[in-house]
Amino acid sequence: MNETPYSRLEARFRRRQALDEAAGMLQWDWAAMMPAGGAAARAEQLAVLEVLSHEMLTAPETEELLDASEAEAPALGPWQRANLGEMRREWRHGTALDAGLVEALSRASQRCELAWRQARAESDYAAVKPLLAELLTLVRRKAEAKAAALGLSPYEALVDAYEPGLRVSDIDPLFDDLAGFLPDFLGAVLERQAARPAGELPPGPFPAEHQKRLAERLMAAIGFDFEHGRLDTSAHPFCGGVSEDVRITTRYDEADFASAMMGVLHETGHALYERGLPAAWRLQPVGRARGMAMHESQSLLMEMQACRSPEFVGFLAPLAREAFGGSGPLWEPENLLRLYHRVEPGFIRVEADEVTYPAHIILRYRLERALVADELSLDDLPGAWNEGFHRLLGMTPPDDRLGCLQDIHWYDGAFGYFPTYTLGALIAAQLFDAARRARPEIPQAIGRGDFTPLLGWLREKVHGEASRWSTAELVGRASGKPLDPGVFKAHLKARYLDS
Amino acid sequence: MNETPYSRLEARFRRRQALDEAAGMLQWDWAAMMPAGGAAARAEQLAVLEVLSHEMLTAPETEELLDASEAEAPALGPWQRANLGEMRREWRHGTALDAGLVEALSRASQRCELAWRQARAESDYAAVKPLLAELLTLVRRKAEAKAAALGLSPYEALVDAYEPGLRVSDIDPLFDDLAGFLPDFLGAVLERQAARPAGELPPGPFPAEHQKRLAERLMAAIGFDFEHGRLDTSAHPFCGGVSEDVRITTRYDEADFASAMMGVLHETGHALYERGLPAAWRLQPVGRARGMAMHESQSLLMEMQACRSPEFVGFLAPLAREAFGGSGPLWEPENLLRLYHRVEPGFIRVEADEVTYPAHIILRYRLERALVADELSLDDLPGAWNEGFHRLLGMTPPDDRLGCLQDIHWYDGAFGYFPTYTLGALIAAQLFDAARRARPEIPQAIGRGDFTPLLGWLREKVHGEASRWSTAELVGRASGKPLDPGVFKAHLKARYLDS
Repeated sequence: MNETPYSRLEARFRRRQALDEAAGMLQWDWAAMMPAGGAAARAEQLAVLEVLSHEMLTAPETEELLDASEAEAPALGPWQRANLGEMRREWRHGTALDAGLVEALSRASQRCELAWRQARAESDYAAVKPLLAELLTLVRRKAEAKAAALGLSPYEALVDAYEPGLRVSDIDPLFDDLAGFLPDFLGAVLERQAARPAGELPPGPFPAEHQKRLAERLMAAIGFDFEHGRLDTSAHPFCGGVSEDVRITTRYDEADFASAMMGVLHETGHALYERGLPAAWRLQPVGRARGMAMHESQSLLMEMQACRSPEFVGFLAPLAREAFGGSGPLWEPENLLRLYHRVEPGFIRVEADEVTYPAHIILRYRLERALVADELSLDDLPGAWNEGFHRLLGMTPPDDRLGCLQDIHWYDGAFGYFPTYTLGALIAAQLFDAARRARPEIPQAIGRGDFTPLLGWLREKVHGEASRWSTAELVGRASGKPLDPGVFKAHLKARYLDS
Repeated sequence: MNETPYSRLEARFRRRQALDEAAGMLQWDWAAMMPAGGAAARAEQLAVLEVLSHEMLTAPETEELLDASEAEAPALGPWQRANLGEMRREWRHGTALDAGLVEALSRASQRCELAWRQARAESDYAAVKPLLAELLTLVRRKAEAKAAALGLSPYEALVDAYEPGLRVSDIDPLFDDLAGFLPDFLGAVLERQAARPAGELPPGPFPAEHQKRLAERLMAAIGFDFEHGRLDTSAHPFCGGVSEDVRITTRYDEADFASAMMGVLHETGHALYERGLPAAWRLQPVGRARGMAMHESQSLLMEMQACRSPEFVGFLAPLAREAFGGSGPLWEPENLLRLYHRVEPGFIRVEADEVTYPAHIILRYRLERALVADELSLDDLPGAWNEGFHRLLGMTPPDDRLGCLQDIHWYDGAFGYFPTYTLGALIAAQLFDAARRARPEIPQAIGRGDFTPLLGWLREKVHGEASRWSTAELVGRASGKPLDPGVFKAHLKARYLDS
């Protein structure tokens, strides 16, 4: 083999990514399998893996090889050049932090996350606040160090790790647009909804085992390959694992089958993205999913765009009826569709409909920016949350469990992640619209439970491109135009006002 | 903190052991959770972890710190000195191998093990032979490299990794003694057994779910803490995980509840050893279980000594009857005891009774010594197996599935492991005998399902001592005398001829 600086870089990053994937599998186990008493030992394992990964990235040899490879870049192919760009990006993020901070962050996150589980269950913000304060101090140090290295503001430097290239100047106009559009729109939707028969949940209970079988049936229809993945149970549904072994989780509510089912369809969207990444670029930075906004677009495209469409609900209704041995008009597609299109302001983000969801995100975006900038103190967080929530959705959370304790993100050290959810919803609408224009047979195929045309388009336009392009380029190449919130708004109008 | 060469060594080994434990968790997942399509990605992760662990061990700084710490050894406490000895031992084993061989062995083992699964299912030795040949070549290179470094024979150098200090000159007289004793003894047992009513399996089926509930009930009685461990299903029952999070597995045969149950009791013995290791020495070499013979002694002490005793079967019988909704005389302790004491030569090691079990081990011990010494070729292995089996137990396996394909060990690269099973059986008999002498209330307590006196003694004499002493010292200190096969033979006579 002809060794070049670039080929040696590939070998280094391959090794590092295998290490990161090992850590990812252990994080899946933490959430889905680990007994509570295993947390301290696991935190130790994860801290060691993170520090080793950081050492590989920041070793002097990595920098030398990056410099030498960039000098030979004109001789590289386009994927290789993109890979080199991603390596440099990761290197910039990594070298901004010293090993002590990486380890301290890993340990403080695990500690705070464990305390948060209890605090949330007991709605006791005061109990977790000291650990969150310790963690936030470290997060601020990280943000400042990265800001200096990347030439960004501290908050933007955090966002950039989740969604490369995304800036506050991109987010603000999009969120302001939505914040302006949604209140009146929501009012109109609620008024129209009140004038029509409400969707009703068919009578349960819905045994978890039957829900799981139905979920697996739907996953298989969409294209999930059980030779390369699993469905398990965890307190907080997520998608983990690696491309060849994707692990998704859900939780079952025996009084309401729709919640777990829609959750599974959502995670299946994530899973198909991971599974569709190009095998030739596995374990290389360019072979990874583009970013968290693009990832969320894939889950929302599946859950919100494809699987709440009249076509899919027509396919689903008889399967669901059969799975639970039901009968009667509540199992008709018309009723289920009204159920899945129900709009209702509520306190919990993960249960929100797609109309009110952006309000949840805008609130968190504003608060976390202020927290990172040290313009909001943790003492004032619950009050600021409740006030902000009331301004956006007209209701005040009765306790912190339904307020600032509900989400794991901050308590796990993930500041700067929230904006990607709503970016993902905008991208999902735009991609699904483009897919249907390119392949008009998609809706009818979905009505037969055949996702091949949709998945084929996604594999070609999104999954198979991995991180070769920026998010903006990827959206532009797939849909023919820059990201346009008008498509999302048109989707909402069509579904909630005109249908 | 006052840094010394020794304290820096502790920090290095702590980090390395956390890495090894991460790999251990991923191996558990491989066996218990991973879909088949995940194997290639997982093999990559495990290879990287193994190579990194090897690099940490063989880095020049480790040697410098070992030398400096040994110079200051008189100032260390007894546990620290023992820890230093274990570190040096691991270092000798590790530095004997170069990184290329470590990685090649990791990959070849995973490859061969995967092929073996299929080959065993189809009884097709020829299909796996080329991969086994590749693996055996690497194992021989490992054995020779370690032999040179440790001043042992190649085979002994392999054994030493599983059971430190165990030599062929220890094994041969013990195995010759047993090989001389067992044929006549087996004849006498079978004759006596034929003259009495046979134990009969109560009528099934025994749903896996009910078996699992019974197993968990028994595990809890013995002292397994589900806050710090799990019971799952895998093709090959084993005990994995770490001290704070012990993972045991079993497999359920719905036609025979005894098989999974006894397997679970066996693995619970392993689990309690791991769980009982001293917290103060976690992640240090001296804090690990002593070796595989001692580990097997803990599982066999539980399964064979304690849980096949009349006292335990008296406790178990009503629980089992209730678990499966049974009734009638077949659920009486007398019948179940005859069932659990049934002796019957068979082809499969893991199903063997404790009388014929040593014959299975002696056969494998002889064959693997010859394979490592290159005195037996893989072409001749199936024939040599069948011939040797016939000499020892008077039967010829009808196919390789029931012959040389039955065990995972060789196909996973584990040569030199088998002798520890029978060593473990001898130690188990001697420790259980010593425990009952020291605490005469043990049998009656077991009859009430109360394992506190037995577990208390084991924790004090064995588990809590971790690797502070050699196996020989540990056995001597706990039982008051050197390992004596007479205790095991006396146990067999008492149970199978005199009871």
